[in-house]
Amino acid sequence: MAKSVITLGEIMMRLSVPANGRFTQATTFQAVYGGSEANVSVALSNFGIPAGHVTRLPSNDLGKSVVQHLRKYNVNTDHIVFGDERLGLYFLENGSMQRPPRIIYDRFHSAFSFIKPGQIDWNAVMNDASWFHWTGITPAISQGAADVCKEAIEAANKHGVTVSGDINYRRNLWQYGKDARDIMPSLIRGTHYMIAGISDIENCLGIKGNDYASVCKEVINKNPQIKNISFTHRDTISASHNKIHGVLFDGSTLLSSKEYDLTHIVDRVGAGDAFMAGLIYGWLKRYDDQKTLEFASASCALKHSIEGDVNLATVEEVETLIKGENTGKLLR
Amino acid sequence: MAKSVITLGEIMMRLSVPANGRFTQATTFQAVYGGSEANVSVALSNFGIPAGHVTRLPSNDLGKSVVQHLRKYNVNTDHIVFGDERLGLYFLENGSMQRPPRIIYDRFHSAFSFIKPGQIDWNAVMNDASWFHWTGITPAISQGAADVCKEAIEAANKHGVTVSGDINYRRNLWQYGKDARDIMPSLIRGTHYMIAGISDIENCLGIKGNDYASVCKEVINKNPQIKNISFTHRDTISASHNKIHGVLFDGSTLLSSKEYDLTHIVDRVGAGDAFMAGLIYGWLKRYDDQKTLEFASASCALKHSIEGDVNLATVEEVETLIKGENTGKLLR
Amino acid sequence: MAKSVITLGEIMMRLSVPANGRFTQATTFQAVYGGSEANVSVALSNFGIPAGHVTRLPSNDLGKSVVQHLRKYNVNTDHIVFGDERLGLYFLENGSMQRPPRIIYDRFHSAFSFIKPGQIDWNAVMNDASWFHWTGITPAISQGAADVCKEAIEAANKHGVTVSGDINYRRNLWQYGKDARDIMPSLIRGTHYMIAGISDIENCLGIKGNDYASVCKEVINKNPQIKNISFTHRDTISASHNKIHGVLFDGSTLLSSKEYDLTHIVDRVGAGDAFMAGLIYGWLKRYDDQKTLEFASASCALKHSIEGDVNLATVEEVETLIKGENTGKLLR
Amino acid sequence: MAKSVITLGEIMMRLSVPANGRFTQATTFQAVYGGSEANVSVALSNFGIPAGHVTRLPSNDLGKSVVQHLRKYNVNTDHIVFGDERLGLYFLENGSMQRPPRIIYDRFHSAFSFIKPGQIDWNAVMNDASWFHWTGITPAISQGAADVCKEAIEAANKHGVTVSGDINYRRNLWQYGKDARDIMPSLIRGTHYMIAGISDIENCLGIKGNDYASVCKEVINKNPQIKNISFTHRDTISASHNKIHGVLFDGSTLLSSKEYDLTHIVDRVGAGDAFMAGLIYGWLKRYDDQKTLEFASASCALKHSIEGDVNLATVEEVETLIKGENTGKLLR
Amino acid sequence: MAKSVITLGEIMMRLSVPANGRFTQATTFQAVYGGSEANVSVALSNFGIPAGHVTRLPSNDLGKSVVQHLRKYNVNTDHIVFGDERLGLYFLENGSMQRPPRIIYDRFHSAFSFIKPGQIDWNAVMNDASWFHWTGITPAISQGAADVCKEAIEAANKHGVTVSGDINYRRNLWQYGKDARDIMPSLIRGTHYMIAGISDIENCLGIKGNDYASVCKEVINKNPQIKNISFTHRDTISASHNKIHGVLFDGSTLLSSKEYDLTHIVDRVGAGDAFMAGLIYGWLKRYDDQKTLEFASASCALKHSIEGDVNLATVEEVETLIKGENTGKLLR
Amino acid sequence: MAKSVITLGEIMMRLSVPANGRFTQATTFQAVYGGSEANVSVALSNFGIPAGHVTRLPSNDLGKSVVQHLRKYNVNTDHIVFGDERLGLYFLENGSMQRPPRIIYDRFHSAFSFIKPGQIDWNAVMNDASWFHWTGITPAISQGAADVCKEAIEAANKHGVTVSGDINYRRNLWQYGKDARDIMPSLIRGTHYMIAGISDIENCLGIKGNDYASVCKEVINKNPQIKNISFTHRDTISASHNKIHGVLFDGSTLLSSKEYDLTHIVDRVGAGDAFMAGLIYGWLKRYDDQKTLEFASASCALKHSIEGDVNLATVEEVETLIKGENTGKLLR
Repeated sequence: MAKSVITLGEIMMRLSVPANGRFTQATTFQAVYGGSEANVSVALSNFGIPAGHVTRLPSNDLGKSVVQHLRKYNVNTDHIVFGDERLGLYFLENGSMQRPPRIIYDRFHSAFSFIKPGQIDWNAVMNDASWFHWTGITPAISQGAADVCKEAIEAANKHGVTVSGDINYRRNLWQYGKDARDIMPSLIRGTHYMIAGISDIENCLGIKGNDYASVCKEVINKNPQIKNISFTHRDTISASHNKIHGVLFDGSTLLSSKEYDLTHIVDRVGAGDAFMAGLIYGWLKRYDDQKTLEFASASCALKHSIEGDVNLATVEEVETLIKGENTGKLLR
Repeated sequence: MAKSVITLGEIMMRLSVPANGRFTQATTFQAVYGGSEANVSVALSNFGIPAGHVTRLPSNDLGKSVVQHLRKYNVNTDHIVFGDERLGLYFLENGSMQRPPRIIYDRFHSAFSFIKPGQIDWNAVMNDASWFHWTGITPAISQGAADVCKEAIEAANKHGVTVSGDINYRRNLWQYGKDARDIMPSLIRGTHYMIAGISDIENCLGIKGNDYASVCKEVINKNPQIKNISFTHRDTISASHNKIHGVLFDGSTLLSSKEYDLTHIVDRVGAGDAFMAGLIYGWLKRYDDQKTLEFASASCALKHSIEGDVNLATVEEVETLIKGENTGKLLR
Repeated sequence: MAKSVITLGEIMMRLSVPANGRFTQATTFQAVYGGSEANVSVALSNFGIPAGHVTRLPSNDLGKSVVQHLRKYNVNTDHIVFGDERLGLYFLENGSMQRPPRIIYDRFHSAFSFIKPGQIDWNAVMNDASWFHWTGITPAISQGAADVCKEAIEAANKHGVTVSGDINYRRNLWQYGKDARDIMPSLIRGTHYMIAGISDIENCLGIKGNDYASVCKEVINKNPQIKNISFTHRDTISASHNKIHGVLFDGSTLLSSKEYDLTHIVDRVGAGDAFMAGLIYGWLKRYDDQKTLEFASASCALKHSIEGDVNLATVEEVETLIKGENTGKLLR
Repeated sequence: MAKSVITLGEIMMRLSVPANGRFTQATTFQAVYGGSEANVSVALSNFGIPAGHVTRLPSNDLGKSVVQHLRKYNVNTDHIVFGDERLGLYFLENGSMQRPPRIIYDRFHSAFSFIKPGQIDWNAVMNDASWFHWTGITPAISQGAADVCKEAIEAANKHGVTVSGDINYRRNLWQYGKDARDIMPSLIRGTHYMIAGISDIENCLGIKGNDYASVCKEVINKNPQIKNISFTHRDTISASHNKIHGVLFDGSTLLSSKEYDLTHIVDRVGAGDAFMAGLIYGWLKRYDDQKTLEFASASCALKHSIEGDVNLATVEEVETLIKGENTGKLLR
Repeated sequence: MAKSVITLGEIMMRLSVPANGRFTQATTFQAVYGGSEANVSVALSNFGIPAGHVTRLPSNDLGKSVVQHLRKYNVNTDHIVFGDERLGLYFLENGSMQRPPRIIYDRFHSAFSFIKPGQIDWNAVMNDASWFHWTGITPAISQGAADVCKEAIEAANKHGVTVSGDINYRRNLWQYGKDARDIMPSLIRGTHYMIAGISDIENCLGIKGNDYASVCKEVINKNPQIKNISFTHRDTISASHNKIHGVLFDGSTLLSSKEYDLTHIVDRVGAGDAFMAGLIYGWLKRYDDQKTLEFASASCALKHSIEGDVNLATVEEVETLIKGENTGKLLR
Repeated sequence: MAKSVITLGEIMMRLSVPANGRFTQATTFQAVYGGSEANVSVALSNFGIPAGHVTRLPSNDLGKSVVQHLRKYNVNTDHIVFGDERLGLYFLENGSMQRPPRIIYDRFHSAFSFIKPGQIDWNAVMNDASWFHWTGITPAISQGAADVCKEAIEAANKHGVTVSGDINYRRNLWQYGKDARDIMPSLIRGTHYMIAGISDIENCLGIKGNDYASVCKEVINKNPQIKNISFTHRDTISASHNKIHGVLFDGSTLLSSKEYDLTHIVDRVGAGDAFMAGLIYGWLKRYDDQKTLEFASASCALKHSIEGDVNLATVEEVETLIKGENTGKLLR
């Protein structure tokens, strides 16, 4: 069996108000499942890359629905563990025009937040792994989650599995008594590909600066195992109109992808995860950095046209967009 | 301004799978708001009785939606307090035929569970109250909720406000270290009208027996301020077909209402609260016990035809059903 | 071209609350179009009988939608006239269980209520007519509508076109200063087949009595052109469970059809019109009275399973039900 | 209790075709409630300003639904009166792209059109009023409505309550035999803040001109109690793309707000009422004219992103848009 | 009875994923009916032009639904024939943003593909015809369909009925062993108005070139009965944003219409048929070529705002757009 | 890895009219995927039994959706093969009351119908199989499908895998020139557990008789490898009300299960497959015949309450129903 990209992280039920409705207008909510890391696995599986996800879920029908969501997209669920607690949730109000999208998180006390070292057999997981991906959300959730994340990174390093980390600093999390700077440096130390913006780096590593390239250079100087650092730049004209492009610092040069003009945005949640999946795809395929960055940016752009947290674009669709062929033309 | 019936308790968002779908089939959830005690206030307001509800809600748009739900039905919300925590939820899978309805509760760590004595100005509340109603769900949630419930009952007694209590023992709650028998007796001591089944009484007061009348007699002997004890008897042929009637022990005799044959059930959640509202309505109108019981049972029967947690029947509709006129006939 | 059954009457937009919702819960309404007489034409057209409808509609897109509704079902619309006023509406709350269905009419000041003699070329209409059908709703709407109804019946009689009339007395209409007894007798005088219950007859002809056969006998004695009088008997156990059968007094004997036990009712609006269409079908096909009555009753029974105002059953489906074959069995 | 902004006017049920459907494609209609003046009260209540609405409604479940709509948004309904007639309606076909939105009004013969002087206790109303707002729609509906509007303005003036009037000339109304120029001048005479475009002023006051500032100057010269006159300027590129900005003539200078580029329009109905509510908010908060105008224009802009007739934006959201911060950015 | 525009061709059920969903996300499909030629008839009927359609349908309820679809829009269905086979289908995934719309055709083995010469009484059809329209889809489906198309064109020519043909070359069809160049030339020989792009002409007539005018000139030289050749030029910025304009070669000059900037596209399927219907409308009304082209292009532009395969714009709406009046402005 | 139950057969997209609508009323269709044999695998997987399915699908997004449907329910899809043709479909009109459900099949020319021997590696499949199940639908589809079915049964017998066959004779299939009696006997010869009604046996084996036990006895006499023959008996009172029980002839005795009174039927499609899955479950668990039959009948009964083709009941739910505990009672 082919080795898989493994991700670790919480999956939540997303309850979104249909169309352009506001929270106080909702009489129904649309339910999908998503989590930053699992979204990466689903997107990679849609790209034809074997993928698996590790998490902890409640042992009720909501947890079962999460497993079915992953299986539907052929993401391996064999290493998921179960507990008695609740499924994390988030409520989404889609923005439109000048009105921003809003999220009400309801993820505390979830089954995932009670994950503990020893619950996952990381040796078994990493034996079949081609890559390991984590994000800064996991260590922000609980001490247990931080510990398990560290446990996973260490196992990956021990098994020679490449590690990517999306720093994704979220101020509203980190409520269990630790600060990002207490925890993140040691996790970054085991990471080979890092995704981070300038404020993520400041908040997690304490490295400040206004120039992305110089800040990245300093990070790599202090963490020489890091091969490159990348990020998406998003220009928000309105909730319905953004422009995005990707940037990647390869240790010496700051590469930049084509910019996409995203009008008529359908769903921007998970666009960063689609970018991430595109990067991993490029690296696994041994694309050069520029080609990888273009693939990731086009993947990210396409995600904005797709409902739900997960990118459903295929490799062929991403490549067609990069080539600029048939963009938006009816395919019979 | 007319004095109001006041209820105290948690309100949750109910997320139900549409029609006959199962949890694992859900792509949307229908959202309504309900809680046993608030449902009584809404039903009474629909009967034309001034009503208010006291609770603690999260200070976000979900909490705001609860307030708007109550206001829509003209339930006074002036004494509601707000906090930082979450809104309690429950997920509902409607049953049908031989397949039972199922609920997944997700109500722990709610804003209501953090309610504390002193947060509500009960003197102000009871000054304007014509009646106070509580249920056994509240003291089961947290020590704080139990304390506030006691505080409310004592204030009611002090202000000469009649108190009703729906014992409603729920084994899955009561997780804060106390047992129902530690807490409930002192609350029942301040209560004048009690709604309880034979197992509720055993679990909360430790009084056992197989004969409802004798058990009730013993309860009243020990709690002589109780005027009567009532209950709905439900015969479940299937999820779509139940039979119900109400019983009431008036201290010496066990009265029984007409039985309703409930085929084609639409929504049975909140039927007990509709029964409760019917009882309070009868007592406030100084109906005799039999007439009160018939009103409550017809109110309960009609609730089964109404979507959501709250009874939307009017007094006229309840009375028409009691008279057996035009049952189900098209009204032009 | 084959001659058509012609009906005259108002068509309204029906706005119904979805599923089991109550008026105050509605956030959407389902829109269909219906009117007692037009429903008969649509049902007959579905039975393969050429049919046309005459009415007056507003000259806006709602009136256009009504025309499209009729055309969809191949009902001739060539003699419809248009005016500036509004489309009549009615709001429907489906009943369920013990809770009755309710209608809020909003049909006053409609384009139809302003219909006037001379607007319809009845000679042209009756030239192509095989049958003319009217109901007691039309003369109740306005003096103009009553006059046009009389005009039509007279034209039918002049052209030798058979006339049926569904008396259908509605107390809430008749607000233009005339009483049913002022108007109806002269319309009934031109009618050959009459559909009426015992109270319709009392309200419109002033003939009282408790025995349907004797009352009908008296009607026929006074209106000897009437061939027979029929009616559906409905026993309403609940909104979801009725029993119906048809009766027909043929001048000497009271015939009765098979009774249908109608559980799980979907939509009972228009069931009387489906019965009426079945009668006209039988009479046009020169079935004997008993066979005609069975056809009409089965047509009426099937309508209860069909959403909307109009019966969509085919002749084959009606006949299969009469034979009792395959009732409810999956047809692959 | 805090004094309230009081509005007077008709509330209609709006029945809109879902999404981009045309009238003749509709199988369902979405139902919301709205009226120009009530929309102002709801918007102000959402801004935290105590508000009440005065109207006349049918005493059926549709009238009840209107009351529940207002109560949901905490708008006082104590002075609403009821009658036997119908609820006014309007049907809306959303436009999109080059295809304009279209409205079919069905509001004649409504309960509101039968309102008469003496039905409302204006002394009681104005005792608790901080502001009174009317529009030119009310006097256009019927003589009774015009009389009640005048009665209200006079009561406001008597009680020293500030009066605003949105002239909003609608040619299709004014069918009861009076012309706007017969009625409007005396209403404007009691008004302190006027909202009007150049053609409104011509149609209602007979003052012509091509230059907005000079026309306004002439209005104020003739009506010196008027403090300022304002208006929204809308540039319609397509149904999906407008540009708007507000203008205000303060007696000497024509102020202009920031212009908003409104692509991807969700619902433009009620945008003028959102502008109006923003003006009243600014004036009540004693903002200067420019700040008031900016608040009103941003309120108006945000309304275009919100489904239904009423603005659900909060003060915080309006202020964030004015500042240009986080426009359209995801708020976690 | 007025003579009608007659079209010949297959009608399919279109099953489209709601909103922006992808095929693999679909839990429901929206069903409409469409076919290039029938769409032209429906659009013309909406323009007030008598129209009829000839096709072959399965004799089941899906075929019946197609007939009802045409009748709803007043398209004559008297010459439709029926068979035992299936209804052709196509599945549509709406595109959005950079993601293109996609179609999965499922039209092989349809009842239409089994149409044979002799099944349609073309003499009867052409007797009542004012115009005959065909497309290059029909001869691509099967030998029988090609033969019937030829039979129809010959009958039209015999009866002096003008013929238009939309070449519309579809490579994926043409699977019955013939090439377009075997079949199309003889059909074009009987055609007076031709709609074709440069690649259609190459694929069907073997005439190559880069300059549209010269290619058209060569076509007309070889087919001197052709009066003009036209086409829509579409510039696809994204699935949500296109620009279109029409071109027409009148034998000597290449005319060009106004260009429409189509942002916020609702549904582009059938836009070519709306253009076609606009051309036929102009020619029937004896508009000059430029006016005809402007009418067709505006008709085409409006179609993009309308859900489904068929254009529902009226002549008044098309003319208003051409004049540039009220584009997108709310019409009360 | 645990050995799996393997099924072989076609999976179709089912397009059903929502709620109680008729085909001609449909504007949307609900899409699920099902096929008699795959439904058995899904049901068994829901019972916790490893299961896989073998089929041939079109290599487009509809085929992909089928694979995702199976994976969601953890059914192994590794041996599915793909081709260029279409996905079989069926259209379903739900029946209600006296109106029967109706199916329009559109399954000819599907990718499955082009399956050929040699396409599936049956040795590999049977190596991991614990059981093989086929139905009489497969050999009815095409010669290729019949050949592959035979190939599978022979491979199963060769590998010592137990074989069950649901005879399920469908007259409308069998259109490729062979009769059931030509093909079925040799397939039955390799089958150990047979599900068949009396007419299935007559049509496929030519054994006639009125007594089920004697007919079964004769079948077993001629096919001594058959261990038992079972069937569900269905009594259809209406489309909404059936009664069912299972029967099983064990070679000497006819066993009968408890009868279930099925009122308020939600969806009866796939009930036979739920029965089948229950039988296989019982046999795999080595239940005795009576217990197996009770499990199968309760599984069948529960399916009627579940939307879609597949049974979603768990073992616990089936066992609870058998015990008669909590039937239809709300489970909190």
